[in-house]
Amino acid sequence: MLETAETGRKVSKAYYHRALPALRAALLEAQAQLFAQQRRPVVVLISGEDGAGKRETIHALYEWMDPRFLRTVALDDPTQEERERPPMWRYWRTLPPKGHIGIFSGSWYSDPIRLRMAGHISQKRFEAQAQRIERFETMLVQEGAIVLKLWIHLGKDAQRRRLHALEADPRTAWRVTPWHWERLKTYDKLQHVASHLLALTHKPHAPWVVVDGEDEHYRALQVARVLLDALGAPMPRKQQRRPAPKPPVAGPVPKSAPGLAQLAEHAGPALTQRRYKAELALYQGRLSELARHHQLRKRSIVLALEGPDAAGKGGAIRRITQALDARQFQIIPVAAPTDEEQAQPYLWRFWRNLPRWGHWRVFDRSWYGRVLVERVEGLCSPADWERAYGEINDFEGELVAARVIVVKFWLQISQDEQLRRFRAREQTAFKRFKITREDWRNRAKWQAYQGAITEMVERTSTSKVPWDLIEANDKDGARLEILRRLCQRLEQALALS
Amino acid sequence: MLETAETGRKVSKAYYHRALPALRAALLEAQAQLFAQQRRPVVVLISGEDGAGKRETIHALYEWMDPRFLRTVALDDPTQEERERPPMWRYWRTLPPKGHIGIFSGSWYSDPIRLRMAGHISQKRFEAQAQRIERFETMLVQEGAIVLKLWIHLGKDAQRRRLHALEADPRTAWRVTPWHWERLKTYDKLQHVASHLLALTHKPHAPWVVVDGEDEHYRALQVARVLLDALGAPMPRKQQRRPAPKPPVAGPVPKSAPGLAQLAEHAGPALTQRRYKAELALYQGRLSELARHHQLRKRSIVLALEGPDAAGKGGAIRRITQALDARQFQIIPVAAPTDEEQAQPYLWRFWRNLPRWGHWRVFDRSWYGRVLVERVEGLCSPADWERAYGEINDFEGELVAARVIVVKFWLQISQDEQLRRFRAREQTAFKRFKITREDWRNRAKWQAYQGAITEMVERTSTSKVPWDLIEANDKDGARLEILRRLCQRLEQALALS
Repeated sequence: MLETAETGRKVSKAYYHRALPALRAALLEAQAQLFAQQRRPVVVLISGEDGAGKRETIHALYEWMDPRFLRTVALDDPTQEERERPPMWRYWRTLPPKGHIGIFSGSWYSDPIRLRMAGHISQKRFEAQAQRIERFETMLVQEGAIVLKLWIHLGKDAQRRRLHALEADPRTAWRVTPWHWERLKTYDKLQHVASHLLALTHKPHAPWVVVDGEDEHYRALQVARVLLDALGAPMPRKQQRRPAPKPPVAGPVPKSAPGLAQLAEHAGPALTQRRYKAELALYQGRLSELARHHQLRKRSIVLALEGPDAAGKGGAIRRITQALDARQFQIIPVAAPTDEEQAQPYLWRFWRNLPRWGHWRVFDRSWYGRVLVERVEGLCSPADWERAYGEINDFEGELVAARVIVVKFWLQISQDEQLRRFRAREQTAFKRFKITREDWRNRAKWQAYQGAITEMVERTSTSKVPWDLIEANDKDGARLEILRRLCQRLEQALALS
Repeated sequence: MLETAETGRKVSKAYYHRALPALRAALLEAQAQLFAQQRRPVVVLISGEDGAGKRETIHALYEWMDPRFLRTVALDDPTQEERERPPMWRYWRTLPPKGHIGIFSGSWYSDPIRLRMAGHISQKRFEAQAQRIERFETMLVQEGAIVLKLWIHLGKDAQRRRLHALEADPRTAWRVTPWHWERLKTYDKLQHVASHLLALTHKPHAPWVVVDGEDEHYRALQVARVLLDALGAPMPRKQQRRPAPKPPVAGPVPKSAPGLAQLAEHAGPALTQRRYKAELALYQGRLSELARHHQLRKRSIVLALEGPDAAGKGGAIRRITQALDARQFQIIPVAAPTDEEQAQPYLWRFWRNLPRWGHWRVFDRSWYGRVLVERVEGLCSPADWERAYGEINDFEGELVAARVIVVKFWLQISQDEQLRRFRAREQTAFKRFKITREDWRNRAKWQAYQGAITEMVERTSTSKVPWDLIEANDKDGARLEILRRLCQRLEQALALS
């Protein structure tokens, strides 16, 4: 695939200098529009063989455009803070916000290529990574990003000529080391691996553009043109993008998930306070011990609690965190996104809150907001919440693959029980602030929410991160059940059960 | 000082349980107000001797309050990302936003105490650190934060009794190690060092409260009461807080600073294009070489460019970054703060943008906005911009102390020259977006700005980070001068000149 780019095409210096000014003006204009509208981020990947002109290309982009709204991300070895999160975390944390252009020198392609070349991952795993990348980029595009992937290509002969030329000149000979000649030996392997990866991830909405790097003027003009085209690309049209429902990617839906309606109606005998306290102490003790398990020094835990207003999420979270050391956990109450979060893809605000090893993050409401409140309230388009199921499954899949322990609870209460709790809250001075007009408004959409909840549970209960559905009309019983299941999930994850 | 807290006061369990509910309700109410108003962050430091009940106190806070708006910061050894920034960076990045309560278990006091006890820093340095802390906390309070510093105290005898009691019980004996008995030997030293530090940093607006930790019920009630008092503290009144101008803390004002008015009027003979290009290449080459200096692998560089609209900041920045590798630098255009930035102290958005080792951050406008645009446009109170001079000097002082290279340029143009440039921009298609109604409005306040600029230069030109004043009516000359001075500053910092 790559060698087809070796067109040998050159342009004269004179032609270059004639053609460039108009291109530069157009690029600057397009960039100014991009920034003024603040609607789309631009992700530009600069890849290619050694010496093909990657650095020069980045340099040229800075020459041509307003450098204040460009940022180059060049990631070396992951830092410890990065190593303690899933591999994609470092890219999420460096994504450009809307209106800005992020240039990635080295990207999510670097690791698969390097690992496959060294034989550290199988072909199958390599292809699975390609699929993950493809889904990640599709997500970026559907979130409004412009994704442009450049491979600056230098043929093997050109590469060899380049090294010889450098060696021949006493001023540049020092730049050629034995390592460079070694790299030339792996040139064919790189071609093989990279070509395959490029083919797998070349999509109309996130295309690879291979640019012949040998002639610097040709290369520069090509890059400028390709970038200008990309900046002018229309926003994806939401209406057309509603895909057919797909099964979740990370595994099949467990057949045993009970219906939500039955869940709320079922109620066992109420617990005595004495029995509740005894069992609470028991489970909290067990959880406290599990939380000190040596494996957790190198793993982290993400909990999500979802449920209707007044379902008891806050109370359940308190019973969990009581068993933990406050230095270990943080509760993330999920409400409206900040403006920095709105300038990023939907999942960004959850990625940014992933814990380090040994730490817990407890989400009081979570990334499921898009398929619940945003869907029901019409805060996003149908296409947006439709694709969210797959994106959420991917997100949780990446967490699990990085050995993060993920547990998610749905607390179900009946409509009558919710009404009782709303009324009770209004009676209690220090709980009154918890009940707002919005709560009553949400309540009016109960049926719409039930439909959304059912679809959510069906489409995001994966074998690795199943929903734990909790009958929550009985508050005490629900708290115990949550603690019990949480302990179970931890024991499973730690391979203790 | 600390032993005066050994009151031996106890409260009965019965009294405790009678007194607590009202306190808890009041705390919850105060916290709800805090969150609803979103006006003030709360910083609570929990310090004290081993076993005095720090952990239990944090646990109690979580019991009493809404844990969703609490976060505990417990910092161990700095991570590499933290080590590559000034020591306070890790605290800045964990400050709670407005409406939230941040509990610091270990804080900016930990290092001075530890280092002084070990004799690694002199008494003088220790006291200088105390002063820095005091100024930092004053800044927090003046930015609206409630700062509460708790020292949970356990007397030496009580400490000894505690260890013996733990040892005597087979279930807890394992918790006492030889290390604990060793620590007891340094008890008196800790008392000495901590008492001194507490005395130095005990201020009415950020008081230390020493709580006798021996009786758990007494301790808990005291903490609850103190916190409740703190949450009810009135906002500092801006009007009363205008301090008398003080000399900048980091050094004297250089006497040789030329007047700004003269600066803009002075103009040498214009450069020929040929000479400009030759000199530009010369300085860029020198800068490029300096940027690769081995020392910079463990140091970082912060540049700030300030000046009136159309003074040529952007053009100068381009000439600088042309000499750098795009993977090394990022330009930070400073405009209106985001809402996350508004929920933090003013300097937070500059702290968050400090570079790692080997990296440059070029600020296109900077932390001087407060004493320029915010002052002139009345975007902050006079008290706010008054205190900003000292805070800015402290900020730059901390950077320099951490071996960050800081260079700041003021580009001065005359009013006539600005008018010419505005008109020219309006004529050029791709520059038209750079000129807005606001630019014209700012221009009308030229005189007010000149006063603010003069005061800024006088009060923030410190011996370590002097202003580099640039005559910028001649664009090319200004660019060369900036490059020349930047090279000089780097050579000074790298001790090459």
